[in-house]
Amino acid sequence: MARVGLLGASGETGSSILEALVEDAGFEIIALVRPASLSKPANVVLKDRGIELRALDLEGSQDSMAAALEGLDILISAIGPRDQLAQIPLVPAVKKAGVKRFVPCGFAPVMPVGVHRSRDQKEEVYNLVKRLHIPYTIIDIGWWYQFSLPKLPSCRIDYAVGPASQSIAGDGNAPSAMTDLRDVGKYVTRVIKDERTLNAMVFVYNELWTSNQVYDLLEKLSGEKIPRKYTSAKDYERQIAEADVTLKVKPEDFVARAQKVLAQYALSVGIRGENTPEFARYLGYLDGKKLYPDVKFFSFESYVQEVLGGKAKGVYEDLMPLMKNAIETDR
Amino acid sequence: MARVGLLGASGETGSSILEALVEDAGFEIIALVRPASLSKPANVVLKDRGIELRALDLEGSQDSMAAALEGLDILISAIGPRDQLAQIPLVPAVKKAGVKRFVPCGFAPVMPVGVHRSRDQKEEVYNLVKRLHIPYTIIDIGWWYQFSLPKLPSCRIDYAVGPASQSIAGDGNAPSAMTDLRDVGKYVTRVIKDERTLNAMVFVYNELWTSNQVYDLLEKLSGEKIPRKYTSAKDYERQIAEADVTLKVKPEDFVARAQKVLAQYALSVGIRGENTPEFARYLGYLDGKKLYPDVKFFSFESYVQEVLGGKAKGVYEDLMPLMKNAIETDR
Repeated sequence: MARVGLLGASGETGSSILEALVEDAGFEIIALVRPASLSKPANVVLKDRGIELRALDLEGSQDSMAAALEGLDILISAIGPRDQLAQIPLVPAVKKAGVKRFVPCGFAPVMPVGVHRSRDQKEEVYNLVKRLHIPYTIIDIGWWYQFSLPKLPSCRIDYAVGPASQSIAGDGNAPSAMTDLRDVGKYVTRVIKDERTLNAMVFVYNELWTSNQVYDLLEKLSGEKIPRKYTSAKDYERQIAEADVTLKVKPEDFVARAQKVLAQYALSVGIRGENTPEFARYLGYLDGKKLYPDVKFFSFESYVQEVLGGKAKGVYEDLMPLMKNAIETDR
Repeated sequence: MARVGLLGASGETGSSILEALVEDAGFEIIALVRPASLSKPANVVLKDRGIELRALDLEGSQDSMAAALEGLDILISAIGPRDQLAQIPLVPAVKKAGVKRFVPCGFAPVMPVGVHRSRDQKEEVYNLVKRLHIPYTIIDIGWWYQFSLPKLPSCRIDYAVGPASQSIAGDGNAPSAMTDLRDVGKYVTRVIKDERTLNAMVFVYNELWTSNQVYDLLEKLSGEKIPRKYTSAKDYERQIAEADVTLKVKPEDFVARAQKVLAQYALSVGIRGENTPEFARYLGYLDGKKLYPDVKFFSFESYVQEVLGGKAKGVYEDLMPLMKNAIETDR
């Protein structure tokens, strides 16, 4: 039975992966948590479910990290979006521990290098992995359903709606590959058992939707008419330039950072249409639809029904108030 | 008939490609040359052979560059090793001209990002190509036969021997993929006609040899005993550190630059063994041996016989005196 270490098991992506690993029942699962977090309620729950907890201090020594990774066949990093570079000291420890497949944190839309800070930080990690000749798999998953719906005039889906979808990028006709966050783990368990994906990039996703199609569907299912605000490339570029003014003085300013990140996503996904299986193939990814045509996933329509029925779950709930501030600056 | 533009047709790699394109007879060939070089003897010779010459000024406007690329189906860049970044302004013009396949300058050993300046500059170009969604093929070709032989005590092959092989990296047992410079073009003509290689990296090479095997062969065929000087990773790292001291003050110092480049190659090719089909697959390359098993190439043994027979041709003859200085600093 393969021993799989998971970093970030309590995060959005990590939880999805954890549930799928448990469901699969073919893995011995080790959750790697910060030493200070071992006794946190979320981790105690994991322990009670029979999942091994191990302390991993990303600021600790190479030896202590390698010891925490001892005996793992696979290591999956689902570290938070703002902690990508914290993986850098981890990589030599992964090498030292002899992990047979490292899945560094990807789990994002498909993008080229040089258009998005988080993607570029991931590239730094990937390049280090390759310099150390570590067996790897990079998995990208497109855009979350959970980040894709606009608000309704009645406000009845506000509880589940993220900030990134409150305006439509460009003409709203660029298709984007979308995945239910809850399905991410299903794909990951398939990918890590698959020899074809060793030392490769894989793009997995559920369905392709344009922004206009998303609005059309939500209008049809809700019976409400949703105002459509189209934002041009030029406007997003202006937002990035404005954010850069703040970031020059306060490089980690949360609101400016979020404004820039969302504008960069809008340009890539909505305007240049990069979050597609075609562009993924262009960049060298294997196509998850071809590898795993049989995965049962949530349809986007069923997700929208859930949201309208009051049964969906929001994401990044701790960050939402701050992210909404970032969006308000655009209003 | 596909219209192929070639940048750097008079260089070492460019000449090999040009001859193969002519030999193939299936291409309309356009040599792109600097405006000031249009009347140089080497280019007049090309013109006399019926090859179209077009002026391309890499420091000119986007519009003038796009006009020079007008109507090309394929553009191959075989620009000099120190001019990689001169391709940056060219890339948007390639986009503008609608070139159907761009082969940015690769033609090197296989390496990860972050271990060699020239490779990293190429990566900058590749990343820009991908940001602009330009159809591309990256072709690497391993290590030249023409850079692989040590001197003989009798000095009788000095006329053909490059500087990079005067000591053996590590224990001399790392295999390295080697290609006769004259064969590079044969592979390139195959690759650019092949739909499987569109938007992909391809690794083509002739034969795998270790340094010790190269010395053994040369000793056997020459009848001379060649002293073997082994250089450790630590020594190459020291050479790089020394070069960096000079480069900090004089960033383009030729001797320091060459010393660093050769040490970085030795670490990658000779110590870490990265210039192999296995490592190329690990990095995502297609394998030229599988794609084109029928290419007739010069065997390494036949090349060594040519060298011993006084019939081989040296490379980078203008740079050799300078490069030898870089090597002397290591003696």
